[in-house]
Amino acid sequence: MNKYIEHTLLKQNATKKELIQLFDEAKEHHFLGVCINPCNVAFASEYLKDSDVKIVTVIGFPLGASLTETKVFEAQKAIEQGADEIDMVLSVQAVKDNDYNYILNDIKAVKNAIGTKNLKVIIETDLLTPEEIINCCKVIKEAGADFAKTSTGFVKNGVGAKVEDIKLMNKTLKDSNVQIKASGGIKTREQALKLIEAGATRLGTSSGVNLINKFL
Amino acid sequence: MNKYIEHTLLKQNATKKELIQLFDEAKEHHFLGVCINPCNVAFASEYLKDSDVKIVTVIGFPLGASLTETKVFEAQKAIEQGADEIDMVLSVQAVKDNDYNYILNDIKAVKNAIGTKNLKVIIETDLLTPEEIINCCKVIKEAGADFAKTSTGFVKNGVGAKVEDIKLMNKTLKDSNVQIKASGGIKTREQALKLIEAGATRLGTSSGVNLINKFL
Repeated sequence: MNKYIEHTLLKQNATKKELIQLFDEAKEHHFLGVCINPCNVAFASEYLKDSDVKIVTVIGFPLGASLTETKVFEAQKAIEQGADEIDMVLSVQAVKDNDYNYILNDIKAVKNAIGTKNLKVIIETDLLTPEEIINCCKVIKEAGADFAKTSTGFVKNGVGAKVEDIKLMNKTLKDSNVQIKASGGIKTREQALKLIEAGATRLGTSSGVNLINKFL
Repeated sequence: MNKYIEHTLLKQNATKKELIQLFDEAKEHHFLGVCINPCNVAFASEYLKDSDVKIVTVIGFPLGASLTETKVFEAQKAIEQGADEIDMVLSVQAVKDNDYNYILNDIKAVKNAIGTKNLKVIIETDLLTPEEIINCCKVIKEAGADFAKTSTGFVKNGVGAKVEDIKLMNKTLKDSNVQIKASGGIKTREQALKLIEAGATRLGTSSGVNLINKFL
């Protein structure tokens, strides 16, 4: 169960001390990875070099409103500094403008830039209709990304990962290789189990230690 | 009074229609500028080419947790696409780790990359102590930036621009060329007047039309 968890610390006022605690916990519990901001990838890569913990970072985060070129640049730098997986945010604006071609090219460009590394695409479910969630999943599949991910955790009054959204994503993606990462607001074991049952194969959470202690 | 206002639309789910409304309002009221996300700079530049409205965009926004290299790249692209001013977010993490040298170099690198264009540095007052606000202002001055700016408007439960913070910034910066941009949560004429009285020479707000109508 620990291999579902990406132990996550993305708040902008985190300290180095908090990061080290995150890394130590991830090592101790053999979590699948840590999910951190780009400015911390080099440090994580050094600190975790003798562990099995993957380094996951976020790109165009959390608004998805950077240029595609900037997302590509940021992703390449992250890989150079030791990131194993890339979680990019799509353009929610393009969703609202029904410009799925923009989204397709945005995702493809980042995927091309990171070679064989896993690419997850955050769709920000809190801001989308069910129809938009379906459309985004179809584009993610077409673009060749590896995961669709629900949330950044940074939407004001946002809920984050919801079972009904995971079910909808799973239904749309079931005949593909695209997996699902549930993220945002995952705090209890019950929630985590329901999200996994609904189709999530990864959980992004800052409550990883709580979840795993309950599982053991 | 309209020349204090940067008419602002930074939410990630804004549509092209909302952007056009923002631009039209900025032209009509001769606001100093519009403040928009990087993915919209090229469009703004085209749409506003025959106007006196400046194009302001945000870099490393809103977390300030990108690499310095990414901030530089993003700022350069924005200038290439027509941005007149750059509002970058500093590393709040570095503030919390008391690493002001990181912040100094982060700001200097972006300033060097954008030539004579104005650089504003967002310090995210909602997350800082008074002492940290003072320290950030000193570093901004030392780095040669043009403005210290209070807020991104994206802190959960954040208040944004506060009169007491502007007074503190103004006191720290009064013997320098660094100006102050108040931003975040500015919705009323009374607020705006108090922030200007406290030392702000720019206001970042999505309520520009309300403010100006009351002023007229």
